[in-house]
Amino acid sequence: MIIQLEEKINKKAKENIFVKINSLGYKTTEVKTHHGNYVVCIGKMEFDIRSIGSLAGVKDVHRVSDSYKLVSRKWKVEQTQIDLGNNVIIGGNDFTIMAGPCSIESEDQVRKIIQHLLSNNIRIMRGGVFKPRSSPYAFRGLGMQGLKMFNRVCRENGIKIITEVMQVSQVHEMYDYIDVYQVGARNSQNFNLLDALGKVDKPVLVKRGMSGTIDELLQSAEYIFSNGNEKLMLCERGIRTYENAYRNTFDLNAISLLKEKTHLPVIADPSHGIGIREHVSRMALASVMTGADGVIYEVHEKPEEAMSDGQQTLNFAESTWLINNLRKTFSLKESISIL
Amino acid sequence: MIIQLEEKINKKAKENIFVKINSLGYKTTEVKTHHGNYVVCIGKMEFDIRSIGSLAGVKDVHRVSDSYKLVSRKWKVEQTQIDLGNNVIIGGNDFTIMAGPCSIESEDQVRKIIQHLLSNNIRIMRGGVFKPRSSPYAFRGLGMQGLKMFNRVCRENGIKIITEVMQVSQVHEMYDYIDVYQVGARNSQNFNLLDALGKVDKPVLVKRGMSGTIDELLQSAEYIFSNGNEKLMLCERGIRTYENAYRNTFDLNAISLLKEKTHLPVIADPSHGIGIREHVSRMALASVMTGADGVIYEVHEKPEEAMSDGQQTLNFAESTWLINNLRKTFSLKESISIL
Amino acid sequence: MIIQLEEKINKKAKENIFVKINSLGYKTTEVKTHHGNYVVCIGKMEFDIRSIGSLAGVKDVHRVSDSYKLVSRKWKVEQTQIDLGNNVIIGGNDFTIMAGPCSIESEDQVRKIIQHLLSNNIRIMRGGVFKPRSSPYAFRGLGMQGLKMFNRVCRENGIKIITEVMQVSQVHEMYDYIDVYQVGARNSQNFNLLDALGKVDKPVLVKRGMSGTIDELLQSAEYIFSNGNEKLMLCERGIRTYENAYRNTFDLNAISLLKEKTHLPVIADPSHGIGIREHVSRMALASVMTGADGVIYEVHEKPEEAMSDGQQTLNFAESTWLINNLRKTFSLKESISIL
Amino acid sequence: MIIQLEEKINKKAKENIFVKINSLGYKTTEVKTHHGNYVVCIGKMEFDIRSIGSLAGVKDVHRVSDSYKLVSRKWKVEQTQIDLGNNVIIGGNDFTIMAGPCSIESEDQVRKIIQHLLSNNIRIMRGGVFKPRSSPYAFRGLGMQGLKMFNRVCRENGIKIITEVMQVSQVHEMYDYIDVYQVGARNSQNFNLLDALGKVDKPVLVKRGMSGTIDELLQSAEYIFSNGNEKLMLCERGIRTYENAYRNTFDLNAISLLKEKTHLPVIADPSHGIGIREHVSRMALASVMTGADGVIYEVHEKPEEAMSDGQQTLNFAESTWLINNLRKTFSLKESISIL
Repeated sequence: MIIQLEEKINKKAKENIFVKINSLGYKTTEVKTHHGNYVVCIGKMEFDIRSIGSLAGVKDVHRVSDSYKLVSRKWKVEQTQIDLGNNVIIGGNDFTIMAGPCSIESEDQVRKIIQHLLSNNIRIMRGGVFKPRSSPYAFRGLGMQGLKMFNRVCRENGIKIITEVMQVSQVHEMYDYIDVYQVGARNSQNFNLLDALGKVDKPVLVKRGMSGTIDELLQSAEYIFSNGNEKLMLCERGIRTYENAYRNTFDLNAISLLKEKTHLPVIADPSHGIGIREHVSRMALASVMTGADGVIYEVHEKPEEAMSDGQQTLNFAESTWLINNLRKTFSLKESISIL
Repeated sequence: MIIQLEEKINKKAKENIFVKINSLGYKTTEVKTHHGNYVVCIGKMEFDIRSIGSLAGVKDVHRVSDSYKLVSRKWKVEQTQIDLGNNVIIGGNDFTIMAGPCSIESEDQVRKIIQHLLSNNIRIMRGGVFKPRSSPYAFRGLGMQGLKMFNRVCRENGIKIITEVMQVSQVHEMYDYIDVYQVGARNSQNFNLLDALGKVDKPVLVKRGMSGTIDELLQSAEYIFSNGNEKLMLCERGIRTYENAYRNTFDLNAISLLKEKTHLPVIADPSHGIGIREHVSRMALASVMTGADGVIYEVHEKPEEAMSDGQQTLNFAESTWLINNLRKTFSLKESISIL
Repeated sequence: MIIQLEEKINKKAKENIFVKINSLGYKTTEVKTHHGNYVVCIGKMEFDIRSIGSLAGVKDVHRVSDSYKLVSRKWKVEQTQIDLGNNVIIGGNDFTIMAGPCSIESEDQVRKIIQHLLSNNIRIMRGGVFKPRSSPYAFRGLGMQGLKMFNRVCRENGIKIITEVMQVSQVHEMYDYIDVYQVGARNSQNFNLLDALGKVDKPVLVKRGMSGTIDELLQSAEYIFSNGNEKLMLCERGIRTYENAYRNTFDLNAISLLKEKTHLPVIADPSHGIGIREHVSRMALASVMTGADGVIYEVHEKPEEAMSDGQQTLNFAESTWLINNLRKTFSLKESISIL
Repeated sequence: MIIQLEEKINKKAKENIFVKINSLGYKTTEVKTHHGNYVVCIGKMEFDIRSIGSLAGVKDVHRVSDSYKLVSRKWKVEQTQIDLGNNVIIGGNDFTIMAGPCSIESEDQVRKIIQHLLSNNIRIMRGGVFKPRSSPYAFRGLGMQGLKMFNRVCRENGIKIITEVMQVSQVHEMYDYIDVYQVGARNSQNFNLLDALGKVDKPVLVKRGMSGTIDELLQSAEYIFSNGNEKLMLCERGIRTYENAYRNTFDLNAISLLKEKTHLPVIADPSHGIGIREHVSRMALASVMTGADGVIYEVHEKPEEAMSDGQQTLNFAESTWLINNLRKTFSLKESISIL
C-alpha cells in the first residue's frame, strides 16, 4: 500500500496517519522525494482502505500487490518523464536516442562523435570513464580526468552526458559532470550504490543484471526511489542464456512486460543486447515495437579501432541509417492507437 | 563443400566426380530433391576448388565452412520460396500470416475461425490434432478424425493447413490432409522423424527446441534437406531461461541471426514465444523488424474457453488489429532499403 | 488420487467404483500393469476419502497432490526394485553400475569391454547402436545388425544390455535383444515413444531432457507407467546452462530431490553430466552421496580412438579405480543411518 | 607469464627485468603481497623463456595460458593454505567447516550457536550483519553494532568470524572485527570492492556470481591477488538456471573443475546452493567427493524462527549429524589416493 501525503501536511496529522497504519499491522517507510511525500506500507492486512483515504493529510492511497511498490504502475498510471533541461526529455512524446562510444578515449574521439550526434539531432551522449572489466589487466577507463574533458566538450556543444557510476564514492565525485548516472549490469544489485543514488537529485538509468529477473530490476529501482530519487529509468541489455551465437540474449519480452508493470521509462541497449554489430540495428528497431521509450547504443568513428566493444559498435553511416529508421518506426508505432 | 550436379549428368561423369572427391579425403553424401542433385562433402582439405568445378557434370561448387551445409546461405544466397499453390507463397514478397487455435476442437470452432481468417484475407490456418502434453492425463487432441474434418472444412474455403506431426507413422497418415507439417519444439531433435519428413515432398516447418541452439536448429533442417526435401522453413518459438515472468523467452535475436545464416524462410511464433496474450501482438510486430518472413499465432473465438493455451490466444478483435498492423509494419520494413 | 484395485475384483464392483468416482467429478484412467491394477483420478474435489476406501474391490486409496501420480512417493513409499534376472537387481541393496562404450563399434571392442566388466564384477553393459547425432553426416551407429552381435556376445558372458531406443518401430524390433530400454535426453518428451514403451514389459531408463525440469521427467515416467509398465528408472545426465566450462551442468540436486519425490530408482550419468574424462569419477562418487541408486558411465579400451564421446570416456584403469571407490563410497553412505 | 622476483632483488636488477620484458612486447603489472613479489606479463609473444629465467633477481618464471594468471595452478601447483591463527587453517590437511546463522540476530542467538559449534569442535562461525536483500523494505542486518557484539562473543570463545562485506567503506570499518571477509554472489564482480580487499592482509572468500562463469570467478580472485592479497578462497553457492524445483542449482561440477584450475582453496555452500533444508546435508557430503576443501552452511537453534533463510537452515541435531558425516566422508576421500 502506498499513501501519498499532502504537501503541506502538519506534524500532528502525519503522526496520526502513522499510528493508524501501524495499528493495522503494517510496517511503514516514509519516502520524501523532490516530487512527493509517500508512506510505503508493507503487509497484507484486510481492512477498508477508505478509512485511510479519509484521514487528514492523505492525498491518495493505493493498494499495490506487487513486491515493488513506488515503481509500480498499480498506483501511478501516467508515465514518468525525466527532464534533463534544454528540452531534452526522456519518457515524453519523443523517442529518446542516446549514443556514443563504449569508452571515452580522447578529446578528438569525443569531438568527432559529438559532430555525428549533432548532425543527426541527437542530444545525449554515452561514454564510459569507469569501465567494469572481467580482467584486472584490461583497460579500465580514463577516470575522473577523462570525465572532466568529456564534460567540457559536451557542455560546449549542448550535449547531455550519461555515464556509468561504479561505487558510492563516485556518486558525489561525478555529480557536477554528468546528467544521468548509469548503473551497469554488474552493479544492478549493488544495494549500497543504489541507496546512495537515491540520495541525489540527478536521473539514474538502472540496467538489468546479467541474469536479473524483471522483479529484481524493479526492486533495484525501488531502492533508489525509496531513498528519495524518482528520476529513474530502466534498461534491458541482454541476459545470459545457454545460447552462444550472440554475446547476450537481448530480451525484448522484458521491455514489453516492464511497460505494463511500471511507470518508469524503459530504454533498450541493443549493442550489449545482441553484441554483434551487423544485428544491432534490427534489434534496435524491433525494440521500438515492443514499447521502448528510447535506445542507448555504441557508435565510434572507427569501430575496429575502439579500445573496447568494437565488435558491437556502429560506425557513423550505420548510426545515421539507424537514427532515421528509429524515427520512422517510432512514428508508425505512435500512429497505431492501442499497443 | 557442396557440389551441385547438372540435371542430366550421366552415370560415368557422376562416378568420376565421386572418385575425385573421395580421393581428396572427403566423406560424401548424395542428395536428390525435387529441385536439384547435390553432393555434400564433409572434411577440411586443402586443394584448388577449380579442379572440382571444371569436372564434367558439375554445375557449381561451394565451400561451406558452417557445420550445416545445404541449409547454409554460404552456397545459396537467394531466399527459398515455398509455394503452397493458389498463390500462397511463403518466403516471397509478402509477409506470411498463419493463425488458428492451439487445438482443433470442433467443426463449429474451425468454421468460425476460418470466417475470421477469410475476412482478414489470411490463407493458412494452424491447429493441432496431435498435441504433445507434459501430462498423460491432459487432452491430447482429436487425432486423425479431427484432422479429416479440419481438412474438409479448410478445402471448402480455400484455406491451407499447417499442423503438428509427432511421429514417423503419422507422416504418411497425415499426408493427404495437410499442406505444411509442423515439427514441434519437443521433436526438434527427433532425428527419425526428421529423416522421414525428408522423404516426402510437402513443406515442413521446424521449430527450435526448448533449449535448442541456432546451430542445432539448422542441423535439424539439414536432416530433412539431406534426405531429399528442401521445402523447409524454421520457426523461433521462445527458449527456456531462468526468467519466469513469461512462459518462454521469445528470442528475436535468433530471427535476426537465422536470416543471415540460412536461405530458408524464418517464421516467428510469438504466442508460444512470450506466452501472455496481452504481449503477443507487440512481440509479433517486433519480429517483423528483425527480418521474420512470417508469423504463426494462436487465435480463438473465446480464448478463455479454449481447450489449451487460452492464456496466450488472441480473440478475433485482437487478431484483426494485429493483422492490420503486421502489414503496416512489414510495409515500413520493406521500404527501408538495407536491413 | 490413486485407487489400487483388488487383484480379483469382479466386473460389478469395478463398475461401481467408477460410477462413484465419476460422480465425485474426477476424470479417471484405468491402468493395468504386471504388478497391479490402478485407477488414476484427476481432479481436486473435497470429500471423505474413506467413502472410497470402504468400497468393495478397493485395496487401497491415496491422495496424491503432485502433478504426476503413479510415480509419486506420496502413494508408494517403498522403493521400486527392477529385477533383470540372474540376481541383477536395480534399486535393491546394491549400488548398480552400468558401463560401456558410447557406441558399439565391433565384436572385438565389445569382447574387450566385457572382459573388463567381468573382471570388476559388473553385470550390465551400455552401448549405443542407434545414435542421435546433431549432424546428419555423423556416425549414427551400427543399427540392428550391431545390436544382434552385441546381444550374442553379452548372452555368452551373462551380461545384461541397456541401449537407446529412438523410435516407436524400434521398440518391438529391439525387444528380444535388450534388457533395458534407454530413452535419451532428446526423446525425453517423445510422448509416442513413451506410450509405446508403456506397452512392453521390459524395464525402461528415462533420461532427463536437455533442459527438462524434475517435474517433466516425472511426467515422462508417468506416461510409461500409465500405459502399463512400471519397471522404470530415471536418469540425471546434465542440463544445459550458460556455463561452457563443461559439456553439460551435471545436476546432483536433481538426484537428491528425485529420491524424495518418487519411488523409482535414480541413476547418475556423470559421463554426459560433466563431459570431461578427468572429472567423471569425482562426479560419480559425489552422486552416491546424493542418494543415487546407480551410475551409468562410458568406458572404452582406448578412449582417444572411440568413434564418439572419447573426451568423456574412461579407460580400463580409470574405470577399475572408479568401481572400487564407488563401492567404498556406497558402503559409507549405507552405514550412515538417515540420509 | 608470471615472473617471481627474488625477495632481496636490488633496484637495478628489477629495472633490468622490466626493460627486458617490455622490449619483448609484454604489458607488465608488478604485484607485491605478504608472500612474494611478482611481475604479471600480459601478451602472447614467442621467445625463449630461459632468457628471462637467467636474469639476475628472477626466482622463477612460468608461462600461464589462462586468462587469469596469479590464481592459476599453471604456475603454483601446491595448494594455498590460509592460516587464521590458533591452528585454524583453511586448505590444509583438514576439511574446514564454517557454520552459523544467515543473519546475526542477538547475543543470545550467537551464544547458543557458538555452544553448538564448540560442542562439535567447529572453530569458524558465519553470520551476516550487512545483508543484501532484493527488497529495500526487508531486514538488512544489525550492521556494525551487531558485528561488534558478534566479535566480542566469538573472541571470548575462541571462534573465528567470516561475514559479508558489501562496500569499500566497510573494508576498513570491519577490519578489526572479522577473520575472513566474504564477498557475496551479488558483489562477485564489484571490482572496486575487490580492489579494496586486495589492499588488506586479511583472508577473503569470493563467492561465484549468480550466473558467474568459472572464468569470471577466477578473474575476480585475480583482482584481489593482483592488488596484493593472496589469502584467498573461492566458493560455489549455486547458479541460476531454468529449474525452479530448488532455489539455485548447486553446481558441484564447478568445485571439481576449480580444484584443477587454481591453487586456491574451494569451499562449498550447500545452503544457498540447493536452498532446501532437507537436501542441504546430502549436497554437503557430495561436495566432499568433488574435492571441496570445506563447507559453509547455515545453522540456527530454531530455523523456523530465523529472520532470514530459515527454509535452508539446519537445526542443531541436523548440523551435528552433518558434521560427523562430513568428517567420515572426508576421511574416506583422503584414503582414496588419486582423486
